[in-house]
Amino acid sequence: MLRLTPSLLGLSLLFALTLPGAATADAGKTPSPKALLDQSRPDEWRTPDPENIVVMQLPQGRVVIELAPDFTPLHAQNIRTLVREHYFDGLAIIRVQDNFVTQWGDPEDDDKGDKSKLRSLGKAKKTLPPEYTRAIDGKLPWTALPDGDVYAPEVGFSEGFPVARDKASGQEWLTHCYGAVGVARDVGPETGSGSSLYAIIGQAPRGLDRNLAVAGRVLQGMEYLSAFPRGTGPLGFYEKPEQRTTITSVTMLADLPPAQRPHLQVLKTDSTTFAALIDAKRNRRDDFYKVPAGKIDLCSISIPVRDAK
Amino acid sequence: MLRLTPSLLGLSLLFALTLPGAATADAGKTPSPKALLDQSRPDEWRTPDPENIVVMQLPQGRVVIELAPDFTPLHAQNIRTLVREHYFDGLAIIRVQDNFVTQWGDPEDDDKGDKSKLRSLGKAKKTLPPEYTRAIDGKLPWTALPDGDVYAPEVGFSEGFPVARDKASGQEWLTHCYGAVGVARDVGPETGSGSSLYAIIGQAPRGLDRNLAVAGRVLQGMEYLSAFPRGTGPLGFYEKPEQRTTITSVTMLADLPPAQRPHLQVLKTDSTTFAALIDAKRNRRDDFYKVPAGKIDLCSISIPVRDAK
Repeated sequence: MLRLTPSLLGLSLLFALTLPGAATADAGKTPSPKALLDQSRPDEWRTPDPENIVVMQLPQGRVVIELAPDFTPLHAQNIRTLVREHYFDGLAIIRVQDNFVTQWGDPEDDDKGDKSKLRSLGKAKKTLPPEYTRAIDGKLPWTALPDGDVYAPEVGFSEGFPVARDKASGQEWLTHCYGAVGVARDVGPETGSGSSLYAIIGQAPRGLDRNLAVAGRVLQGMEYLSAFPRGTGPLGFYEKPEQRTTITSVTMLADLPPAQRPHLQVLKTDSTTFAALIDAKRNRRDDFYKVPAGKIDLCSISIPVRDAK
Repeated sequence: MLRLTPSLLGLSLLFALTLPGAATADAGKTPSPKALLDQSRPDEWRTPDPENIVVMQLPQGRVVIELAPDFTPLHAQNIRTLVREHYFDGLAIIRVQDNFVTQWGDPEDDDKGDKSKLRSLGKAKKTLPPEYTRAIDGKLPWTALPDGDVYAPEVGFSEGFPVARDKASGQEWLTHCYGAVGVARDVGPETGSGSSLYAIIGQAPRGLDRNLAVAGRVLQGMEYLSAFPRGTGPLGFYEKPEQRTTITSVTMLADLPPAQRPHLQVLKTDSTTFAALIDAKRNRRDDFYKVPAGKIDLCSISIPVRDAK
């Protein structure tokens, strides 16, 4: 947890409330995000199912992704299969397009590559049904945001993911917020398999919503996926093999030796503490802010993750 | 200008219309952004005033920033003064907070530093009035977006910048979209000078709007500002001097020898081509998109910049 020294307090105010855990100028007046998290109850945190956690080891560090089987079950299962066949081990970061996506998979899959050299998907399916949207499930927890959305009739959080809903169509879908992990595909809606994935690294490209399957979101390690040199080829693909970063390994958390497992906990998005965090972010009350926005957009809310180790 | 080879067309469709210049699957059906730009008239492009262009040379490459004197005139003038006194030369990238900001200035200004070692601001003012908002100027061009905004009553573009408006208060202000360059300050609203600047590198933190002065926006080189290793200290400040990147030089374009000047042109945001680009981005018509959003948020629209050299 971030701790600010008194000497840092001044500068922390530059954007104190922009990250959970930062102190505020007048923590006495209203709880700061850090105070809210410190006061959270143990039962407000969940430990994701190890069968839904993908651990991608990069030379720079570890990236932890939570799959979303309640929204994209077939993709979650296919990705588990690919991971357990070590499909991703030794593959690479093949594309980094500024303010858009970092994409990884088979370097031969960049359309300049030799298709005959493509790594086999083994037992994994080569294509999947879209799973771009799903029927709204009234049984799933729903934390609605009050400030509206440019793209969807309703937005909020469900099971730890930023979600959009359209009651008219009865559909809901995972949104392309920062850190969302999507399934790359070609023109056809059934051409994705999970063998090439991308993470959103810039302004949320919400126009992709309902057009691509969102398989999950990054819980830890976005600072590695977002900081790769941008590719100089069309769409941000790397032009030279040596520009790519090789993926050391990708493993399901459940298959890691206990000693190597991260022990991440995610704040429940239907918890009172998460609701208080949203309110604190909508109305910045520390002295730095002169005009609290009184509003927040879906993709500007980060869901707190902590290491329970 | 990006050119896609036929062999790339398939993959380009992954996100064809997400960047100006990319081809579409059926350019015959509707003009692609690339086609729209290719068809643009010369008089739809403007060459920014050299007195408003700041050129920051980094080891990684060149960053070109356009100041916005019609919105933040005192800050533009103070930044010109600082640049012309070579204030920034040899200073550093001091902070990179993931999905938020890259900040540069005096390393001693990180609140762990020795204030007595702070570089003198010379003839530049040490503090400035806020200039967070300005009265709406009906004489300035205004291209309104039709899809609404979570944070402001009205948003659109004026003179090449993404702007929010509130007719009730009669005020308008530059927004913290990706690439916006803001003026860091401490708690007091008049504590900013332009001696420490930040660029937005993630989801637009619109809650900063009307709380900080936006001095301009990055026209070229965001791919360098966005890809620095994230700082591991509180708020993303670098903890060790060796982690910082030293700024080679910062120069006003007007002061560069003609041979060294970039010749950037910016598409006018009140041009018919820009309006057509917004429509193309709101309604993706290539075969890749199954459900055109029919909407676009202010910060998801990139303003085309080209090198006229």
